[in-house]
Amino acid sequence: MSGTGGSGRDGAHASRAAAREERAGGAGQPFRFPLRVYYEDTDAAGVVYYANYLKFMERARTEWLAALGFPLAAFEREHGVVFVVHRCEIDFLRPARLNDSLEATVEVEHRGAVRLEVRQEVLCDEKVLTAARVTLACVDARGLRPVRIPAPLVERLET
Amino acid sequence: MSGTGGSGRDGAHASRAAAREERAGGAGQPFRFPLRVYYEDTDAAGVVYYANYLKFMERARTEWLAALGFPLAAFEREHGVVFVVHRCEIDFLRPARLNDSLEATVEVEHRGAVRLEVRQEVLCDEKVLTAARVTLACVDARGLRPVRIPAPLVERLET
Amino acid sequence: MSGTGGSGRDGAHASRAAAREERAGGAGQPFRFPLRVYYEDTDAAGVVYYANYLKFMERARTEWLAALGFPLAAFEREHGVVFVVHRCEIDFLRPARLNDSLEATVEVEHRGAVRLEVRQEVLCDEKVLTAARVTLACVDARGLRPVRIPAPLVERLET
Amino acid sequence: MSGTGGSGRDGAHASRAAAREERAGGAGQPFRFPLRVYYEDTDAAGVVYYANYLKFMERARTEWLAALGFPLAAFEREHGVVFVVHRCEIDFLRPARLNDSLEATVEVEHRGAVRLEVRQEVLCDEKVLTAARVTLACVDARGLRPVRIPAPLVERLET
Repeated sequence: MSGTGGSGRDGAHASRAAAREERAGGAGQPFRFPLRVYYEDTDAAGVVYYANYLKFMERARTEWLAALGFPLAAFEREHGVVFVVHRCEIDFLRPARLNDSLEATVEVEHRGAVRLEVRQEVLCDEKVLTAARVTLACVDARGLRPVRIPAPLVERLET
Repeated sequence: MSGTGGSGRDGAHASRAAAREERAGGAGQPFRFPLRVYYEDTDAAGVVYYANYLKFMERARTEWLAALGFPLAAFEREHGVVFVVHRCEIDFLRPARLNDSLEATVEVEHRGAVRLEVRQEVLCDEKVLTAARVTLACVDARGLRPVRIPAPLVERLET
Repeated sequence: MSGTGGSGRDGAHASRAAAREERAGGAGQPFRFPLRVYYEDTDAAGVVYYANYLKFMERARTEWLAALGFPLAAFEREHGVVFVVHRCEIDFLRPARLNDSLEATVEVEHRGAVRLEVRQEVLCDEKVLTAARVTLACVDARGLRPVRIPAPLVERLET
Repeated sequence: MSGTGGSGRDGAHASRAAAREERAGGAGQPFRFPLRVYYEDTDAAGVVYYANYLKFMERARTEWLAALGFPLAAFEREHGVVFVVHRCEIDFLRPARLNDSLEATVEVEHRGAVRLEVRQEVLCDEKVLTAARVTLACVDARGLRPVRIPAPLVERLET
């Protein structure tokens, strides 16, 4: 492979993985959501189709917000806002295959007034298959214009 | 395979296919929409994932309505109605594979005041891969309650 | 709606639902698999996209086989066979919406030497949203030709 | 929004768009592939579901390779290789909606021995909705290990 580029990324992942494990017993440990790979997720190459990792990651974000006390439907109904994805950087490191038991993680990396930057990984047997940095923007549910993240969620994210 | 059931269906398809060809030069010839099979459509068995034929069939229905002069967006905006699928009977006869050039067809079998029954097939090299009878219901776009098919479309269907 | 056709089907569903409940405490009770509706499952009409119910049903079949002791990967590896869907009759009765908690069921209706006919429903709060009869064929994993259902699964289905 | 980050990106996009237009009449003009937005592509927010832009981009890459004389199936059969996506950076700038007529573009930014970096955009009425940089790796079709891009394609990319 194209040398430094590839190994640089792998190195970064390795150190992040180490950092993740260090924190594993502490407050900063990422949210984890279990997943199974079904036929619908795979393609003719015998592996999970690349766009479907974004589905896995979104399921994890939805369950993470619900676990924080902000289930999707209520969030929109009570606060009139939704999160949309603004940017996604995603590395496909190793393939997932049919019937694999996976976990998708969520961890806040940076919180602005309107945006939330989360790190997400898809893991199989504790190996990182896919790693992403996802930038979410809080928008009003009707016009999809950027608005401040609701205060109750901000508070919850800081504890 | 379980004998009569399978061959009965294949026989029915064969005679329908013959009927279709007879009509091929005439007014009754089904609408045809071309499709290509991409990775996204396939699964780890190396063939098109079964639910995706329903996507192909809906693309064909959308293009068929547009060809009749009722593009989706305008139809909803002008008449306040949409079509929803009420029932679908679908036979998966032969698999489609990556990169295949397919055609999806649409042909009205029965028109009621509210419902439309269409026959649809997915073909590759004139062989029927998948055949379905799809029952559509006309509903108001907001409440999704059944309403009469708009008169201009009824007229168009009868010419 | 088109009268007898619709009500006939609803009637059939009602009596099946009653039959299902009668059996609910007994051995014949259908397998149930929980699901959540995410954005990926919905469409611009605000409801679950019709083809995605087939995905839900396949997830349930996969988990049902795994619960019977035949996880997908092992089934193919040990017996060299997979199940493919041959025919599907599906009624879309009520829409599922974003964030709904659903259950997908599986119940064998008929077992032949090669084919398996299963009834499947997608439920929300015990209401049937979608009901299907799915005909599966056992095929060898390589050539996709029909073969007898492996004896251990036949035995398991009969207990 | 988070100020400089956002506007920086928008600025970069604007200058890239300008560059694209300058080249529009010349040899370097990006490959364009037309697309229609169907119900299957949208979600309950009324817009195209974010992961589906990756499907659009892959369709465009497939058609681009076919247009260069390397249709997917033949490419794998003759050269024993496929391209897999290694990394994707994608900005979601404006939403696409039901029935929109889109174009997905492909343009090579960098070619290594094994990797190909392409810039892709999804456009509606010449406005950039989504912009991505996608890193593809050439791998052998069986083991998915990195191999050199076949010479005939390298030559074709350089003309």
